[in-house]
Amino acid sequence: MRLKQISYQPIEWLGDRVRLLDQTRLPGEEVYLEIADYREMAVAIKELKVRGAPAIGVAGAYGMALGALAIKTGTIQEFRDRLQEVSRTLRSTRPTAKNLFIALDRMDAAAASGKDVTRTKAALIDEAISIHAGEAEATESLSRLGADLIESGFTILTHCNTGPLATTGYGTALGVILYAHEQGKKVRVLADETRPLLQGARLTCWELQKAGIPVTLITDSMAGHFLSKGSVDCVIVGADRIAANGDTANKIGTYTVAVLAKENGVPFYVAAPTTTIDVSLASGDEIPIEERSPDEVTGFHGVRTAPQDCQAANPAFDVTPHTYITAIITERGIIREPYQEGIGGVL
Amino acid sequence: MRLKQISYQPIEWLGDRVRLLDQTRLPGEEVYLEIADYREMAVAIKELKVRGAPAIGVAGAYGMALGALAIKTGTIQEFRDRLQEVSRTLRSTRPTAKNLFIALDRMDAAAASGKDVTRTKAALIDEAISIHAGEAEATESLSRLGADLIESGFTILTHCNTGPLATTGYGTALGVILYAHEQGKKVRVLADETRPLLQGARLTCWELQKAGIPVTLITDSMAGHFLSKGSVDCVIVGADRIAANGDTANKIGTYTVAVLAKENGVPFYVAAPTTTIDVSLASGDEIPIEERSPDEVTGFHGVRTAPQDCQAANPAFDVTPHTYITAIITERGIIREPYQEGIGGVL
Repeated sequence: MRLKQISYQPIEWLGDRVRLLDQTRLPGEEVYLEIADYREMAVAIKELKVRGAPAIGVAGAYGMALGALAIKTGTIQEFRDRLQEVSRTLRSTRPTAKNLFIALDRMDAAAASGKDVTRTKAALIDEAISIHAGEAEATESLSRLGADLIESGFTILTHCNTGPLATTGYGTALGVILYAHEQGKKVRVLADETRPLLQGARLTCWELQKAGIPVTLITDSMAGHFLSKGSVDCVIVGADRIAANGDTANKIGTYTVAVLAKENGVPFYVAAPTTTIDVSLASGDEIPIEERSPDEVTGFHGVRTAPQDCQAANPAFDVTPHTYITAIITERGIIREPYQEGIGGVL
Repeated sequence: MRLKQISYQPIEWLGDRVRLLDQTRLPGEEVYLEIADYREMAVAIKELKVRGAPAIGVAGAYGMALGALAIKTGTIQEFRDRLQEVSRTLRSTRPTAKNLFIALDRMDAAAASGKDVTRTKAALIDEAISIHAGEAEATESLSRLGADLIESGFTILTHCNTGPLATTGYGTALGVILYAHEQGKKVRVLADETRPLLQGARLTCWELQKAGIPVTLITDSMAGHFLSKGSVDCVIVGADRIAANGDTANKIGTYTVAVLAKENGVPFYVAAPTTTIDVSLASGDEIPIEERSPDEVTGFHGVRTAPQDCQAANPAFDVTPHTYITAIITERGIIREPYQEGIGGVL
């Protein structure tokens, strides 16, 4: 089954450049950028023009391909040396999502095994396209598996944005919901607006409207109220990095929803492709958490809300300990406690 | 001890009109309104130009005084009949805060016992001034009592706004913090921005800056993260209505913070004058919760964020069951479990 309603393509490889749907302009405007320089791609990732763990991985891979195409040398050693700078620049954009580093590791490996410059450039483009296809397929598979957890009539709470925009494929948490909807199940979504950057209000509501799924927007502070009222049948969120024990880093506010779900006996699911899993980290304590500019918290979209000189904190992610997670939905199966074992089994 | 740093007066009776600091314009502008008509006062309450449970009570009382002054009749019976319409209008502004109804009950009683129109008008003005003074004194007393719970070095998390602006006196939750600060204790505040109307970002940060207390603004979705990191020593919030069993209605998001505090072993205090307590309600299930316009959720400070035609929910309050509350701080003492008994004791 393929998504029927998706009329937008978040990332597209055009042979020598990348067409990118600028997510910072949604839902007001549907603006596509054409990016031909890897440094522009790094900026686009940093500024969240493209965002979502799987989409960042794909954008990073294409960034490497752009960087490779721009290197003018016939010497493979010089080519590799200069490509390392490209890799370093893309790696320094955002620290939390594992998918970016998995993608760049694959691109680095492709560069290392290339025989000459021309063939290595071609191999890098192929690898990026393959990473893109892989993430898209993985999210489709996990969406299909996850849809089994959804019953017709469910109201599903989600946080942040995890649809085609965030994944370039079906979606993770939102993919599960889209799949269940296409199976004919009647589902309804409560979408957390997801401060500070409002990916829920701006992107999740936009994607659900396009798919024809009823959605009610709430502030992040309302999720607990609706969970306590019995209005939510399950929570599904995505992930930016999952440690070996199942601890999950995801958009700031996810931990809060997980605690509230457990307190109210509501299942809490994490949906992510296996490229989000990082078994080199024993637990969530080791996941690096990106701290972003306080300006995102003291205002929104150029409108200042806090007084001048007001300090603000802005951790972009938090870590949900695995004890709050009912199941982790991956493209290779649904994992439950004990996570250490289950994660070992799908990798 | 009197607040040293308060350079602003949220509500002031000027003999025939009320001077009101327009809280919707803060922190950008410090604009004072002069209100001479009770209907304008009703609109000001409804539109949150004046807000905070104790402040709404005071504004309502002065609204009655304005309404009384405008009635041109020498007949006490006609005066009382027409005053009932004033009372009804003011009662219909906002349903959740108990203080408004306590204040209007007192004003109604003063009207009922008046002998002639002139003396009844004077008695109503006296009663409103007395309600104002009573709320101010109560918040000062509860702030003093509550400050005993605060140790030097504490980082205190708070939600919404509960300072002089919200109370016309010392404050409730913020009053406790201000008092501890004036006692020389080093305190630091983490302020939830409090979506949708951002009373935390706009008002709490402004009041704390004026008082010289270090404050860090966070989004509501970050409170859990900081509680789980051990960065918070206690949580203090205000209340809009407290039922006989201690269940507490307060700004939407309060329940969430309470659950997260309990999960992380952090004390969760509610600070409120006894005028917030409503023993006619056995539990929080009976507290009426105001539903406000979805426009407050689909946008952010005048900037539309959600797609057009996007549905949104907007309950303005939630109920925190008493089992999550470590103590309720009132002007007549600090109440702990069993709340039913403790509340009976202070009333």
